[in-house]
Amino acid sequence: MEARTLYGAIEAGGTKFICAVADADLQIIDQVRIDTTVPAETMSQVKDFFSQYEVVSFGVGSFGPIDVNHDSDTYGFITKTPKQGWANYDFVGDLTRWFGKPVGWTTDVNGASLAEYTSGAAEGANSCLYLTVGTGVGGGFTINGDIYHAFGHPEMGHIHVHKHPNDTFEGACPFHGDCLEGLVSGPAIEKRVGIKGADISPDHEVWDYVAYYLGQAIASYSLVLAPERVVIGGGVMHQEHLLDRVKEQVIVALNGYVTLPPIDQYIQLPKLGDNAGITGALLLAKDTVEA
Amino acid sequence: MEARTLYGAIEAGGTKFICAVADADLQIIDQVRIDTTVPAETMSQVKDFFSQYEVVSFGVGSFGPIDVNHDSDTYGFITKTPKQGWANYDFVGDLTRWFGKPVGWTTDVNGASLAEYTSGAAEGANSCLYLTVGTGVGGGFTINGDIYHAFGHPEMGHIHVHKHPNDTFEGACPFHGDCLEGLVSGPAIEKRVGIKGADISPDHEVWDYVAYYLGQAIASYSLVLAPERVVIGGGVMHQEHLLDRVKEQVIVALNGYVTLPPIDQYIQLPKLGDNAGITGALLLAKDTVEA
Repeated sequence: MEARTLYGAIEAGGTKFICAVADADLQIIDQVRIDTTVPAETMSQVKDFFSQYEVVSFGVGSFGPIDVNHDSDTYGFITKTPKQGWANYDFVGDLTRWFGKPVGWTTDVNGASLAEYTSGAAEGANSCLYLTVGTGVGGGFTINGDIYHAFGHPEMGHIHVHKHPNDTFEGACPFHGDCLEGLVSGPAIEKRVGIKGADISPDHEVWDYVAYYLGQAIASYSLVLAPERVVIGGGVMHQEHLLDRVKEQVIVALNGYVTLPPIDQYIQLPKLGDNAGITGALLLAKDTVEA
Repeated sequence: MEARTLYGAIEAGGTKFICAVADADLQIIDQVRIDTTVPAETMSQVKDFFSQYEVVSFGVGSFGPIDVNHDSDTYGFITKTPKQGWANYDFVGDLTRWFGKPVGWTTDVNGASLAEYTSGAAEGANSCLYLTVGTGVGGGFTINGDIYHAFGHPEMGHIHVHKHPNDTFEGACPFHGDCLEGLVSGPAIEKRVGIKGADISPDHEVWDYVAYYLGQAIASYSLVLAPERVVIGGGVMHQEHLLDRVKEQVIVALNGYVTLPPIDQYIQLPKLGDNAGITGALLLAKDTVEA
């Protein structure tokens, strides 16, 4: 029998789920990793894990796209994913039916943005744009302590960019060809060069293109959202030379038109690393009952 | 002697200022138009006009860029405008010194977005992106009743776009060449074709380019902000054939990736027309004392 306040959190990724239970100070007291297979299988393990505890609320940061519109009939669903079995899965509905507790529901990158805002690279700033550049490209945003949603959630990895004049690569996005994700995701880099990004030399021209497109995209996000911090994570950013090149390209693309914080403050790597997702989901669980 | 609650509003444009005084129901009881020359001249007329009334607060929607960051030493200033005399002008500071009343301060397009959100084409939606496509291209955003600011205000007319494969025009933006504004503003269209937009036939290819770039830009804004409504005004949109072509290009650019409201609801012309700016400034004046 639990007398303490406990929060439940799920970082629901396309490869694995992390489920955690934390105390009132958000210290994790139990955690499990579950493979993402099909909902019946993965979610029954999720159910078993949380059935051991009496949590007051859940926070979920999920792969997407997801429906975050409270007025929608499919609020709380994963919507259009190509991942088998997960399209139109009623994630919030199942958690609610099983446990009867409030569920905070957002995207994985929104969760990470909340975590980096609260206790990571954007601590003290009024807003945090979190980008991940990996298997896919995604962005989440937190402003004045709240995760950003409007009609839906951001899907900013798919914005259009101005093509580099020397670049003839057709892109790898099945929806948009050479949108940002189609040009700079890990699979796009591998498709372009023929070998995995981790094995490509830092002086290969592909990194000039990647820096050019990421710099330009961050310039566009800066013009639209005017964030105080931009945090870039994901596997592609493990290329240590890349961050400085991206910063340079942001400056080139904006050409002095808007006032930014000093560039080394403005654009940073994540501070929470692999813990950003589950930390964000826990913060969301807490916010859900305090709001 | 006034016993009624009165609000003061200024729509500060690069060509003219509209100043208005309205009652508690935001019915305008007096209004004046002042040419935008230099601050000493224009602002002394502003001062004279409002000195006739005892307003409880002001709302200002100004041309920009402006400083909206309360933590900044130059909060309330117009910042980098090329307009002679107005760069680094302390707009909010002068109003405060003269009248000693609270001042709500934002961009002209943010003011228009608030007006269209409250009583225009976006009424009933949770968010309104307002775009103007005219002498310049600008965007303002209102969400859940609040004008959107973060570190700064949006300057989204200058985002980068994917160039149309047949388009060789170098663009007209002094900062970014062929950014969105550099490709679709009134002066850009005139520079490209050699005659004013109003005199160009609807079947001229320039409109294909303008629709392509605006559609793409709205797609990118949709991916970043996920607004519930997009309202497009400005002189270029007086081309009656253009709205439907822009809608088509938004659909092409997104290619079904995100769920939008029905397109004819999603993208609309302004309902308030020329009154959006001053209406927004009045709403802002009211919000400033009610917040």
